[in-house]
Amino acid sequence: MEQQAIQSIVNEVVSRLKGISVKTLSIPMAVSARHCHLSKSDLEALFGEGYELTKKADLSQPGQFAANETITIAGPRGSLEKVRILGPARNMTQVEVSQTDSVKLGLKPPLRESGDIKGSAPITLVGPKGSLYKKEGLIIAQAHIHMTPEDADHFTVENGEYVKVEVDGERPIILGKVLIRVSPRYKLEMHVDTDEANAGFITGKTIGRLIKYEEASL
Amino acid sequence: MEQQAIQSIVNEVVSRLKGISVKTLSIPMAVSARHCHLSKSDLEALFGEGYELTKKADLSQPGQFAANETITIAGPRGSLEKVRILGPARNMTQVEVSQTDSVKLGLKPPLRESGDIKGSAPITLVGPKGSLYKKEGLIIAQAHIHMTPEDADHFTVENGEYVKVEVDGERPIILGKVLIRVSPRYKLEMHVDTDEANAGFITGKTIGRLIKYEEASL
Repeated sequence: MEQQAIQSIVNEVVSRLKGISVKTLSIPMAVSARHCHLSKSDLEALFGEGYELTKKADLSQPGQFAANETITIAGPRGSLEKVRILGPARNMTQVEVSQTDSVKLGLKPPLRESGDIKGSAPITLVGPKGSLYKKEGLIIAQAHIHMTPEDADHFTVENGEYVKVEVDGERPIILGKVLIRVSPRYKLEMHVDTDEANAGFITGKTIGRLIKYEEASL
Repeated sequence: MEQQAIQSIVNEVVSRLKGISVKTLSIPMAVSARHCHLSKSDLEALFGEGYELTKKADLSQPGQFAANETITIAGPRGSLEKVRILGPARNMTQVEVSQTDSVKLGLKPPLRESGDIKGSAPITLVGPKGSLYKKEGLIIAQAHIHMTPEDADHFTVENGEYVKVEVDGERPIILGKVLIRVSPRYKLEMHVDTDEANAGFITGKTIGRLIKYEEASL
């Protein structure tokens, strides 16, 4: 937490020096490894009738949890084992992988906002009691920031807006086209995938700096 | 090539509109997958006395080639097979992996300029005729741009200078701390690793835009 505080202060100073804003523009970051969300019927097809996920750990977004259960996902070129299921069950099954994973699977998932799976890539799911071929559902998740309406006011951004996020450090990076997602149920946090994290040495302790497109000269 | 030409023109227009420079700032990019350079004695230890690498393909940098030969590299957590050897033989053995690879190997290589391996991470090399434990030599290669002295004059940069490189597209990204490497033997080209490539959907057809630190407001 001390590192976070220091980075937050540094970001603030940098922002003020650059005259961008006197507001705090710090965004806590989190790294999403490959994972899947299952519909209730797909969960039952893979784990057996009436099966319910069991909680391994709460996630930072309220109500969301990492389940003890994992599945194998497979494509024409290879498979990935122990892919974590996140709960609770959703309306639609969605599998989120990195571009690195896609190469291993031999599949070409599109870069999409979570929930937008229409026309996305197919994927095979293998569970202990069955397997499924999903015609769509495999995506690479677009980097996004969860925030409350109050956070949105503070940052003067709106739901659906794109921003940039700058990360300082040994391997500095600016990620563009980062989607703002606003809901009273959310907690302020940016989610990147493992490729983005590794390209910028981003960890769960990293603090990014939000840059609005119109304020950015680049 | 047509895509490259279009991107080059777009970069030029963007640069002019932004008033940064009327010079062409386009940098052709290339993606380096994990690979290794072997010293002559390490090559012989792995492949047998008097062994010589055989050429599979020329690389873009003059004189450099991808060999037909591959090795397995191993760490405490896992191993990676079919790691390509690049020739010709060098004075020191050096293995370049991505951060993603490092996690699989269970090792923590530092981010380094090629050739700077003092105090880097250890790595085990396995070849058809023997294996080696190297106390150092495993690095994550820092993103860099090869260029000739004439290119350096054109871009008004110097050997050893850091710049940023912006990549537009579906997953826009700006990579910071990109090292300029100048030699008459080089051909203009930026090298990124697979993590950086996947984070920005960069391929061997991508054209980046060079941004000097002093010209960047961000």
